[in-house]
Amino acid sequence: KLARAIGLGGRINMILQAAFFKISGIIQEDIAVKAMKDAVVTSYGKKGPKVVEMNHAAIDAGIKSFVKVEIPADWKDAVDNSETIEIKGDREDLVNYVRDIMAPVNAQLGDTLPVSTFTGMADGTFPQGSAAYEKRGVAVDVPEWIPENCIECNQCAYVCPHAVIRPFALNEDEKTNAPDGFKTKAMMGKGNEDKSFNMAVSVMDCTGCGVCVKTCPAKEKALVMKSLDSQMSEQENYNYAFETVSDKETGFAENTVKGSQFKQPLLEFSGACAGCGETPYAKLITQLFGDRMYIANATGCSSIWGGSAPATPYTVNKEGKGPAWGNSLFEDNAEYGFGMLLAVNQMRTGLQTKAEALAAKDATIADICNTWISSMYDAKASKVSSAALVKALEGNTATEAKHIVNNAEFLEKKSMWIFGGDGWAYDIGFGGVDHVIASGEDINIFVFDTEVYSNTGGQMSKASQTGQLAALAAAGKETKKKDLGAIAMSYGNVYVAQIALGANMGQAVKAISEAEAYDGPSLVIGYAPCINHGQKGGLINMIEVQKDAVNAGYWHLYRFNPALANDGKNPFTFDSKAPTADYKAFIKSQTRYTSLALQFPDKAEHLFDVASKNADARFAHLTKLSKLYGND
Amino acid sequence: KLARAIGLGGRINMILQAAFFKISGIIQEDIAVKAMKDAVVTSYGKKGPKVVEMNHAAIDAGIKSFVKVEIPADWKDAVDNSETIEIKGDREDLVNYVRDIMAPVNAQLGDTLPVSTFTGMADGTFPQGSAAYEKRGVAVDVPEWIPENCIECNQCAYVCPHAVIRPFALNEDEKTNAPDGFKTKAMMGKGNEDKSFNMAVSVMDCTGCGVCVKTCPAKEKALVMKSLDSQMSEQENYNYAFETVSDKETGFAENTVKGSQFKQPLLEFSGACAGCGETPYAKLITQLFGDRMYIANATGCSSIWGGSAPATPYTVNKEGKGPAWGNSLFEDNAEYGFGMLLAVNQMRTGLQTKAEALAAKDATIADICNTWISSMYDAKASKVSSAALVKALEGNTATEAKHIVNNAEFLEKKSMWIFGGDGWAYDIGFGGVDHVIASGEDINIFVFDTEVYSNTGGQMSKASQTGQLAALAAAGKETKKKDLGAIAMSYGNVYVAQIALGANMGQAVKAISEAEAYDGPSLVIGYAPCINHGQKGGLINMIEVQKDAVNAGYWHLYRFNPALANDGKNPFTFDSKAPTADYKAFIKSQTRYTSLALQFPDKAEHLFDVASKNADARFAHLTKLSKLYGND
Repeated sequence: KLARAIGLGGRINMILQAAFFKISGIIQEDIAVKAMKDAVVTSYGKKGPKVVEMNHAAIDAGIKSFVKVEIPADWKDAVDNSETIEIKGDREDLVNYVRDIMAPVNAQLGDTLPVSTFTGMADGTFPQGSAAYEKRGVAVDVPEWIPENCIECNQCAYVCPHAVIRPFALNEDEKTNAPDGFKTKAMMGKGNEDKSFNMAVSVMDCTGCGVCVKTCPAKEKALVMKSLDSQMSEQENYNYAFETVSDKETGFAENTVKGSQFKQPLLEFSGACAGCGETPYAKLITQLFGDRMYIANATGCSSIWGGSAPATPYTVNKEGKGPAWGNSLFEDNAEYGFGMLLAVNQMRTGLQTKAEALAAKDATIADICNTWISSMYDAKASKVSSAALVKALEGNTATEAKHIVNNAEFLEKKSMWIFGGDGWAYDIGFGGVDHVIASGEDINIFVFDTEVYSNTGGQMSKASQTGQLAALAAAGKETKKKDLGAIAMSYGNVYVAQIALGANMGQAVKAISEAEAYDGPSLVIGYAPCINHGQKGGLINMIEVQKDAVNAGYWHLYRFNPALANDGKNPFTFDSKAPTADYKAFIKSQTRYTSLALQFPDKAEHLFDVASKNADARFAHLTKLSKLYGND
Repeated sequence: KLARAIGLGGRINMILQAAFFKISGIIQEDIAVKAMKDAVVTSYGKKGPKVVEMNHAAIDAGIKSFVKVEIPADWKDAVDNSETIEIKGDREDLVNYVRDIMAPVNAQLGDTLPVSTFTGMADGTFPQGSAAYEKRGVAVDVPEWIPENCIECNQCAYVCPHAVIRPFALNEDEKTNAPDGFKTKAMMGKGNEDKSFNMAVSVMDCTGCGVCVKTCPAKEKALVMKSLDSQMSEQENYNYAFETVSDKETGFAENTVKGSQFKQPLLEFSGACAGCGETPYAKLITQLFGDRMYIANATGCSSIWGGSAPATPYTVNKEGKGPAWGNSLFEDNAEYGFGMLLAVNQMRTGLQTKAEALAAKDATIADICNTWISSMYDAKASKVSSAALVKALEGNTATEAKHIVNNAEFLEKKSMWIFGGDGWAYDIGFGGVDHVIASGEDINIFVFDTEVYSNTGGQMSKASQTGQLAALAAAGKETKKKDLGAIAMSYGNVYVAQIALGANMGQAVKAISEAEAYDGPSLVIGYAPCINHGQKGGLINMIEVQKDAVNAGYWHLYRFNPALANDGKNPFTFDSKAPTADYKAFIKSQTRYTSLALQFPDKAEHLFDVASKNADARFAHLTKLSKLYGND
């Protein structure tokens, strides 16, 4: 409350620190206050006088505004009678893991675990989906859904960084059996007359970032922030929907903003910052391909929120299928993912050989074998043909048949992904990225571009922009942002896209779908707002800032699809319109730029001019590129 | 003689092997012959029936055509009375090194050297120029100069891979004092009426590749191949010219084919293959900048011919100045060179600080200090101002003055180079190449592009072309050659050129000069014919094949100079003309392509078609690129 009144939002550390010194008396009050205020100037002076003033006010508040809480006398003889909560779930491996390993580790009792606890886990594999057991309840306020205002666009779910808000389509039974207080409305869309629509919120997993509310485009907001206390009953409603409501044909295509959100996210409740700009991309990709997906993840933020031990946010669907995920080194992640691809290809061509042998020697199953072989590189068709093949081979004692059944998980075409940040893709892991895209193989790379080494403390990367202040660029970065997309396009046979999910939601899901469908290497670069940018107003503006970035010509949207060139069409689609907002006004909404202006006003103005001109030139270049490839 | 008659040129190994088995009798003749002939089929079958037939003929010749040489009876009591040749020279460190280390190592007595021999060399530094002491005499035939036919174009010297043929401009005295038989002719060019022209051949260093003769454009060739025996006296003539003839103003600009060749090559007599396509580039660069040059050399052919221990072909001029050369790992050479740059920059800005301090406290030398400071980043001006500064500070006891004099070698602007092959630049070291060009610093990268890992046995690199047969691409490379130039151009502030010295001699020296002069990163990619290509007729055609490659649209010449863009001009100059020769006819002159056609005729034809179309598309793309950058 104090922090909010001062304008610090949720940042309460300075107030608590001041209160500590006041109450503890370990340093004389005036000395402590002076030392803290001086430290504020040292730490935040670069961020401008307003930040300093707010933090000084916080120190004053901490000194003055504490309240004494009396400790009840009977606490003296209090007994620890906490109960062990029973961990429940359908997946025995997960229940065992959460009970025997995750819970003790989270209670800081990991050191007491005997080695035998890890029997069967010697390869380092963790069961997926354990993050769903954390139920951290860290949000102060969470969104409440107001059905009467809702236009069922699903944008709130699309942008949620933590997968805590999800639409469900209920049939009559599911609606009837729902808990009291479970809200629904008539579902829109042809063929959906028999369904009810619900937007469920897993309030205990919500971080309270507010992005969903800010994004809601309804005339009257269909979401409002309410205190977590007031919304606790919604957790039961969410759980009901999650556990009970079946998947249904809604008539909305999967590769659209709305349609994609009826699919289960297989990245849930990660430990990313509230309002993270990276996780919505990864979540969306799991909604589209997660049940047949492999991910090689570079070290960086995405390896932390993607696997913050002991909890794992990547999860599985009701059939037990979800992304296989692994994290290697910063410098070899593309190669690591390429190895995954080669291993999968090897397994699948092995299965092909066996299926060919079976078809040759057993006429009764030849057709079903050949159907699988002819469809094995088609995601949808291979799903159907794989199931048919496994069914047909049940009980077949031929060596080949047993091999196929035992390795049935490789029958369906896989979706191979390599994830990482700009520090990886533009810098340290770039040699590998280049090697993978040069291979011509069917593999997909997604770059979460925060334009800075976010996880290691904000060092400049080659993705950083001119005039940006960063560690290793303490006087502002002088060189241009590296054009990773142009480099990839130079190969001619690489699908390349630049997207910004908040700026053009449809373009983002389209690009990701096209990238995955393209039979060759793909590189998708997603603009990812980050807490490190110091966005004015904070990351509640995570979606707006992406719109602003594109409108100001700071970030460009395009897709380069070699498949179009093979059909004699222009492979390059420039999805950005001519800038409608001022470049410099845009960058001046972020402390990564304004800090430079405070310290080196003249140099900053010069670099901002250069950056603005570079952006104009880049827009002109991309416009021409469209013509160049179009054979105009 | 036998090998030549069969068509194997200098390849005598099969004949000698057959003769060995015949004479030694260790295996029954018919078995040995059959085993050798079978081995020929296994080893060379892929290269076609003609190669097999020639090698079979060589085996037959070896079995039949040996001659018995009687060993004189008195050899039984022969005494080893070989004399130790006195190693002479002006540079004591070099003379000591050649006598005490190089000679024993070359005599395979390196193991007998005590550690104390290496006192003062603990850092691994070798004195430059020791290769000149090898005088290997490996050529069967060497060129003889015919003055009356010579048009003084200097192309023979320009293309010589081993720096063994050099033009000299003699004054009257030098001509008068020359040894008997020293040939001269009247020197062409305004202002040269008082000079005589000589083309000297260091016959004992010549490898006999014949490229100079092949290249000579005179109506009647001004060079003919003659037996080494008949030309031995030319070595003395060469030594006279090399040691005696002074540098003179000839009126021919240094950055031209003709003018560059009057400058001393500071890469002499390397151990490269006869007709090597790499060394002419490196030699030319040393002629232009060698006296103030640093080279970081990637592992590969260029690190072998550039430093084949114990001999060092990089050398110094009469002032003792020559390239500082070092070889690091395959994977970090660009970074290694970048470190050299940072070290040099650090030394030079240190000198600047000292010069500023001196100028401030001593008015008598302020002007001379400031003159150096203002010229320190200008190669020509800093050479003059450095000499003046050192002279002015002689005997000056100020700490700063002593520091400057002690570090005078850093006063002149340096020419920083990073050398390597395509395996390094396109593949293993590419991450570093990218990092260096992204730095914006004033550094130059030269890539010897043989389109294959030449030194390690011919593995495919990303520079290999579609349809090329190589190790790791045993069924022909299917993907396109990586467009390293386009990638570098995407930065906008990198000078980029593709050159082929044999195709356009003037463009090559122009590009190299522009690259070095550009105040920022430069990348020059030189097409380098290689023994690995299996060129029809061998590497005597090293220059012709470069012309053919460009005429057939196989290799493209261009220069991208950001300095022009800064002046509002089109930075991109497309130096290639539309192809005038057939792409497929060109590639079919090299076994790296024809081998594929022999093994997989259908696939080869398909890949060759693809490659040919890719080449057309590339030409069209570059033509458009010229327009794109030109703001048409």
